[in-house]
Amino acid sequence: MENLPSSPKPIITLLTDFGSQDYFAAAMKGVILSINPVAQIVDITHEIPPQDIHAAAFNLLATYEDFPANTIHVAVVDPGVGSSRMAVLIECAGQFFVGPDNGIFSWICDREGSYRAFHLTNEKFFRHPVSTTFHGRDIFASVAAALSNGVAPGEFGPVIKNLIHLDSLRAKILSDGAIEASIIYIDCFGNCITSLTREMLGGDLSRVKLVVSDREITSFRRYYREAEEHEVFCVIGSAGFLEIVAANRSAAAILAARRGQIVSLVSQPNGK
Amino acid sequence: MENLPSSPKPIITLLTDFGSQDYFAAAMKGVILSINPVAQIVDITHEIPPQDIHAAAFNLLATYEDFPANTIHVAVVDPGVGSSRMAVLIECAGQFFVGPDNGIFSWICDREGSYRAFHLTNEKFFRHPVSTTFHGRDIFASVAAALSNGVAPGEFGPVIKNLIHLDSLRAKILSDGAIEASIIYIDCFGNCITSLTREMLGGDLSRVKLVVSDREITSFRRYYREAEEHEVFCVIGSAGFLEIVAANRSAAAILAARRGQIVSLVSQPNGK
Amino acid sequence: MENLPSSPKPIITLLTDFGSQDYFAAAMKGVILSINPVAQIVDITHEIPPQDIHAAAFNLLATYEDFPANTIHVAVVDPGVGSSRMAVLIECAGQFFVGPDNGIFSWICDREGSYRAFHLTNEKFFRHPVSTTFHGRDIFASVAAALSNGVAPGEFGPVIKNLIHLDSLRAKILSDGAIEASIIYIDCFGNCITSLTREMLGGDLSRVKLVVSDREITSFRRYYREAEEHEVFCVIGSAGFLEIVAANRSAAAILAARRGQIVSLVSQPNGK
Repeated sequence: MENLPSSPKPIITLLTDFGSQDYFAAAMKGVILSINPVAQIVDITHEIPPQDIHAAAFNLLATYEDFPANTIHVAVVDPGVGSSRMAVLIECAGQFFVGPDNGIFSWICDREGSYRAFHLTNEKFFRHPVSTTFHGRDIFASVAAALSNGVAPGEFGPVIKNLIHLDSLRAKILSDGAIEASIIYIDCFGNCITSLTREMLGGDLSRVKLVVSDREITSFRRYYREAEEHEVFCVIGSAGFLEIVAANRSAAAILAARRGQIVSLVSQPNGK
Repeated sequence: MENLPSSPKPIITLLTDFGSQDYFAAAMKGVILSINPVAQIVDITHEIPPQDIHAAAFNLLATYEDFPANTIHVAVVDPGVGSSRMAVLIECAGQFFVGPDNGIFSWICDREGSYRAFHLTNEKFFRHPVSTTFHGRDIFASVAAALSNGVAPGEFGPVIKNLIHLDSLRAKILSDGAIEASIIYIDCFGNCITSLTREMLGGDLSRVKLVVSDREITSFRRYYREAEEHEVFCVIGSAGFLEIVAANRSAAAILAARRGQIVSLVSQPNGK
Repeated sequence: MENLPSSPKPIITLLTDFGSQDYFAAAMKGVILSINPVAQIVDITHEIPPQDIHAAAFNLLATYEDFPANTIHVAVVDPGVGSSRMAVLIECAGQFFVGPDNGIFSWICDREGSYRAFHLTNEKFFRHPVSTTFHGRDIFASVAAALSNGVAPGEFGPVIKNLIHLDSLRAKILSDGAIEASIIYIDCFGNCITSLTREMLGGDLSRVKLVVSDREITSFRRYYREAEEHEVFCVIGSAGFLEIVAANRSAAAILAARRGQIVSLVSQPNGK
């Protein structure tokens, strides 16, 4: 098992639902810097809604590809902390992912196809005493820092095969040709990110409409300013997914949309 | 055109209206660190109210002078993203400013007087594909990182002369000797920062009053604790501007003040 | 007086009540990096409720031990800024603490027992002009950066003996054997952290109950998932204190608890 190439400044990202008011994220940073003083720590966010594993999974999916090889991503949205859920390290896409085995990394694994996962059992790399309520500090930060020091993944525990997976992001093609997908995330502006990708949409957007509940969206724009005032429209967002957007307002509020809701892309043979 | 002196750790600051809940700021950081692994990234804020260019301009104006020479400031409050507004790099005061040409840097340019601006057209320095909705990641972060690697400003595109400017911060002296200025920012404590500077105030504050709507403020304090309970008073704030403050409360709420509102500094020949 | 061992990247943490919307924290970072370009700045939080010295004291107490030797902690919750309250540097537990003398560091000093304190009087190490409203930038950040450059603590001013102290965290043992303590912090999830430590609790938790106002809590759990739905229970939290917690809800809201409230640990000779 190869060691990590020693980078001058290994990058460790943090993504949690700890909020920004308390010491929780800082404690993880203190543990990391105590183990590896030259680690470069990057906050992805600490404002994931409490225990919202899907929101965590989406935000990491949307940005991991922007980080360089060997980046270590620590994600801690962990309702099962202290129970029997496993702690894992995943090597995937030339990067590393450390956190609970609750599906938080599964959309990345699904997209990449190939990965190796390790069960974090070697207590030598934990902060002691290991609390029952804060594995973010006592296991995940501590393991990530050791990994950034060049410890080989296999040192942390045995390879495991069956990880927990969230619902797949893959869209379904229905018998009438419509594509059924879902809203996978609603961002802080109220933009509704669907699981539809550019590839699924095809070239000619003048002949499709998006159906959300009883509403049909026929406007597909290239950028925000192109929309008319008060228009609800679709745009390919920066994460590569089709987003439902309203100019200067919350599309989620206008549509009463919620995460998980089904959307359908339906073709209109005669155009609109 | 000279190259950047190679600092051991070039500083890149980020100021946006992206909020802290989503992956947006992290994506910019990933792009920067992929291009320049030793960049030192400093968040100024990601909590600018959505699309509030004035708030962004003020916060950058209030702090750029605290940063060392060659700091690169990336500011992305960008309602026109994807449209024809220009992307710019400005060299000013021994520092660099990267963002949309919408006035966000104009108060700094006005204060400093001299600057050079470049239109960011060289796509070699962009992240590809360039999205239509997230130039913060695909153009501004990417260009800032290249700049921090020593690319000369002129490499990014041609010099331009006419930038968009926000309303000037300069106060007007009226015919009766009163000084007319405005509230340029309201901070998170409800302090109302005016465009009046220490220099405009003169030495003897016992002979002036500040008029805001139909209210006259005659109390000028040196620091917060000097004020009486429930007093609304003026103090020279930490950004060098006269601020209207209320002890332990929001002056903005008490005065129903809003950004852009006119204030007048009026002298009282006989004292108060 | 010994100099700081020169670390490759001295760590400076920041803890304030400045919020994340304005330039205040960034200004401190700019000042630090102007004085010591290789300082590693770590935000503990900027979301301490305005002027809540106790919340600041708790959050620093809960995390300073996670940081490596020689870390410099700058804490600025400073209602007395500009008045006669002292500015101090404290050397304690192999780390350094810089901020106002208002009790913000006293729980750490109490726990550690031994410390040295210095009155920050040497204006050579201040940012000039020193504002009357922002000592976080003009004194504390500036002094911390100089300290991180290796300036000896005694250079900043004379040793002082009598610091302001907050109420002690020590619990009282009553004549009937009950232990009287208090709620010292309520975190963003509504968990109520008491001043009771693991050591005070003894081994057999089946024979004690915690009394809060007119409510008795008899459930002591090892981790969150162990609790029943809607249960209000106690757990040893990650800061080493007994916490009152409600599964997926705010215990503080359920109990109408407030910081400072008395709690009593009462033994039940016959079990529950």
